[in-house]
Amino acid sequence: MHHILLSGGFGTRLWPLSRKSKPKQYLSLFKGQSLFEMTLLRNQVVCNQVTVIGNTDNLQLSKAVEHILGDNTVRYIVEATPRNTAPAIAFAAFQVDKEAILLITPSDHIIEGDTGYQEAVLQAQKLAEEGNLVTFGVKPTHTETGYGYIEYSGNTVQSFREKPDLATAALFLEKGNFLWNSGMFCFKAGVYLAELQKHAPEVYDASLTAWKNSTNGELDLESSLAIPSLSIDYAVMEKSDKIKVVPATFQWSDMGSFEAIYDYLLRNGFNTDANGNMVIGETDKHVSFVGLKNTILVYTEDAILVLDKSFSQDVKKVYDTLAAQQSMLLE
Amino acid sequence: MHHILLSGGFGTRLWPLSRKSKPKQYLSLFKGQSLFEMTLLRNQVVCNQVTVIGNTDNLQLSKAVEHILGDNTVRYIVEATPRNTAPAIAFAAFQVDKEAILLITPSDHIIEGDTGYQEAVLQAQKLAEEGNLVTFGVKPTHTETGYGYIEYSGNTVQSFREKPDLATAALFLEKGNFLWNSGMFCFKAGVYLAELQKHAPEVYDASLTAWKNSTNGELDLESSLAIPSLSIDYAVMEKSDKIKVVPATFQWSDMGSFEAIYDYLLRNGFNTDANGNMVIGETDKHVSFVGLKNTILVYTEDAILVLDKSFSQDVKKVYDTLAAQQSMLLE
Repeated sequence: MHHILLSGGFGTRLWPLSRKSKPKQYLSLFKGQSLFEMTLLRNQVVCNQVTVIGNTDNLQLSKAVEHILGDNTVRYIVEATPRNTAPAIAFAAFQVDKEAILLITPSDHIIEGDTGYQEAVLQAQKLAEEGNLVTFGVKPTHTETGYGYIEYSGNTVQSFREKPDLATAALFLEKGNFLWNSGMFCFKAGVYLAELQKHAPEVYDASLTAWKNSTNGELDLESSLAIPSLSIDYAVMEKSDKIKVVPATFQWSDMGSFEAIYDYLLRNGFNTDANGNMVIGETDKHVSFVGLKNTILVYTEDAILVLDKSFSQDVKKVYDTLAAQQSMLLE
Repeated sequence: MHHILLSGGFGTRLWPLSRKSKPKQYLSLFKGQSLFEMTLLRNQVVCNQVTVIGNTDNLQLSKAVEHILGDNTVRYIVEATPRNTAPAIAFAAFQVDKEAILLITPSDHIIEGDTGYQEAVLQAQKLAEEGNLVTFGVKPTHTETGYGYIEYSGNTVQSFREKPDLATAALFLEKGNFLWNSGMFCFKAGVYLAELQKHAPEVYDASLTAWKNSTNGELDLESSLAIPSLSIDYAVMEKSDKIKVVPATFQWSDMGSFEAIYDYLLRNGFNTDANGNMVIGETDKHVSFVGLKNTILVYTEDAILVLDKSFSQDVKKVYDTLAAQQSMLLE
């Protein structure tokens, strides 16, 4: 099986930890390893080849840690401009045999429970060998409005649902036949390309042209800009009739917000004070909280964020304000 | 008139700004000047002599800024151990002529409005010359439970009241004939000593013995420990029938909490963000607050305090905890 690691993304809701020069998947926040490294190692057990797809800025960050795979060499596909997941996965599929099974994963998610993960991957591999496009669904643990949902029965997908409002998320949780859409996939390269060609021919054609113009995995800007920017969910998964889902039992998080990181750190022995306040980031300074609950202080070299945990999504507003000012604090 | 500057006190509710090595009255937080310096300069206008009473640790901090008074020399009385205000003021009275008028002030309060202050002092001086013990009362601006109150009519004190609960403070504010007890006094040295001898003879006798044993204003530990530790309010003001009050119109604060400092800084052009959050202390770091209102981040070299402004009194609990641990963070 061939691990396809998508290393794009920035993590705007994790500023000031996440920076343009070091997006969240490369931060060494988690037991001294980055999410990127943890993803590489987790999939080395089930895959014998790896391709990392990302942009020029991320390439050096990715190469800096490839040694953790030992002798297992890593291939790189370098995008000239972000075109979303449908084209990125097409590039990965073009470079291998049509019968090769691809396991697509983001690089900025966390999975706890190796056994559960490997069981889910083996189940997906089997379904992929039978010619299906397999998505991984995660059992919801709370009413989450930040993820898409998959309505399912066994391995059958009944519908994909956009990010719901709170009432709808509660209904999904109550009904019990809904899974979080994890953004991980498994399928034969040839099956994906055939379905992409069928349901999003413009994406397929432009991606193929760009791939033919690429050199050693490096895409060129001009033909990349001609590719429609579409997600695999929108371009293929929501339209194909070859979709299967594997309901996964492992603990999963997209680590998309400080609340997610806070919860992960708590589960892994990191301390808060008596009122649930936590310091994230390295500092020698003593930090005391008074009159505050569930507050997170994020400490970095040049910026401090003080955050009520339940407002974690609003960190993006700070990012956007700084971006509008072209602030160096994002670099 | 002789300015008697009481420089004791630590400012436990201003940790981590206030430290044992630099109590709050010596911090250069206010327009580059410390409260100690501001108090010296404010009273230079109305007094031609100054005596600073404090402990050994504070002596060098006091001497370091005496140059701001120019040719006006400063006398120092150095206490061997804190004995509260009644003995400290007795030492100051012993060293001068009995007819000398003393103006007693703390060193860690702030007064805004020079004219109002000078008017109040001149009025107090006149009443002191007539043989009264004069206290300064401040018109309350809000229901404050952290101060004692003075019930008054004109210059007559009707009663002293301990720190009230919130309902009582509201009643005082509504009635309109109550003033905050500011901790500033004006009287003839001889009148104070006579009233102290009358109402607290043990304090008077022990203070006199200690003063006789002192060398160049330096008290010795053994005879100091024999002095009962009593405040001037308790020992004299609440008992004497020679008390007068000057209702003052200036803006006054004891700067006893971060809320008081926050309010002062706001009045003096210091900024908060749109939700009333403020950074106090010097840092080059950018600080963002998300999902929080009226939060204060206090930044120092080795400690950060994050505080909901309305819990400012609770900072003392952090101090007490660190004190119990004999933490270096208090030094």
